[in-house]
Amino acid sequence: MKLYDYAYSSAAYRVRIALNLKGIAYERTTISLIKDGGQQHSEAYKAVNPQELIPALDVDGHVLGQSLAIIEYLDETYPAPPLLPSYPVEKARVRNIAYAIACDIHPVNNLRMRAHLKALGHSDEEIMAKWYAHWITVGFSALETMVSTSKETGAFCHGDTPTLADICLVPQMANAYRFKVPVDAFPTLVRIDKHCRAQPAFAAAAPEKQPDAV
Amino acid sequence: MKLYDYAYSSAAYRVRIALNLKGIAYERTTISLIKDGGQQHSEAYKAVNPQELIPALDVDGHVLGQSLAIIEYLDETYPAPPLLPSYPVEKARVRNIAYAIACDIHPVNNLRMRAHLKALGHSDEEIMAKWYAHWITVGFSALETMVSTSKETGAFCHGDTPTLADICLVPQMANAYRFKVPVDAFPTLVRIDKHCRAQPAFAAAAPEKQPDAV
Repeated sequence: MKLYDYAYSSAAYRVRIALNLKGIAYERTTISLIKDGGQQHSEAYKAVNPQELIPALDVDGHVLGQSLAIIEYLDETYPAPPLLPSYPVEKARVRNIAYAIACDIHPVNNLRMRAHLKALGHSDEEIMAKWYAHWITVGFSALETMVSTSKETGAFCHGDTPTLADICLVPQMANAYRFKVPVDAFPTLVRIDKHCRAQPAFAAAAPEKQPDAV
Repeated sequence: MKLYDYAYSSAAYRVRIALNLKGIAYERTTISLIKDGGQQHSEAYKAVNPQELIPALDVDGHVLGQSLAIIEYLDETYPAPPLLPSYPVEKARVRNIAYAIACDIHPVNNLRMRAHLKALGHSDEEIMAKWYAHWITVGFSALETMVSTSKETGAFCHGDTPTLADICLVPQMANAYRFKVPVDAFPTLVRIDKHCRAQPAFAAAAPEKQPDAV
């Protein structure tokens, strides 16, 4: 399979972690979100993914889009190790944490939002302080409550093995560190993120380890 | 089970459609996103859902948050009729469409985003024209390509039975109509939405049919 990837795309980072956890070898093609005004907007890439977003995964000519759809697909077709618990209520808890990041923090803050806010007249400083940091803080505050008050939280967000929730947490926490958003108020998230990043599958997926890292 | 619901929450609208398609009876509690400065921010509701978002579903004392996590839970525990196809590649296609709406259109445009844009100095008119309509148009343009060019599209987004993709499409299309965002450029989406709304499960879930509709 072939991953359309970009080192600093946090949605692509999620898929890289999942592929590594499953031990799946893959080719990669870099689609830079920066070069050429955003290579995801090229006619060639639009034919691959009409959403003009990274990542996409080509599996025998079937192109899958949306990082979480890709990861659910990988979890169904490569069941070991599982990225979701067995029981439906536990699965719902893991997906709740994952979507709280993947729906309510990340898309609101991604590159195209920041570019659009700039086009509406906001300075970079204002966007980072009053938008980017704001939504990470709102989102992480809820998540910290969710994980710190639950007996189901373990070394990872759910128990002692990595799940879809951790796969979403780590790239989002990387964004917080990269853009210097304070995370002191979220000690459980910080502890889980650190534990995840010590695992080889997470470490090898980090942006700075990718061939297009700068 | 008990749904924490609000007539005009499009994420809650999705869960109402799923409950109706499955034929599951449920109690409801209204959490108004408008009254009392937003009842989702009350201490009582924060104890139910730390994300302070609607919907939440209480199943025997387990509270599930995030509409898509709830719907996946319902689909696992009440398998008939299925809301996802059987084959993994087809499931990925349905989830791709669902997440293209639930991650990349809806959270960017919801009430808290519009309130925050207003706090940053934008007028209501500017927010609706240059933000709300913008992201619906960007999102629907990609979706129209995805559904109009695929042989897997049928009477519904995927084949001839409703899936998670339709459950996400209909509330998003309702938002477009409500706020007069032009949809003429998206004939396949308009056609599928109309077909969905003719089904009793979709019709009964519409905002104007809920007891707290105004």
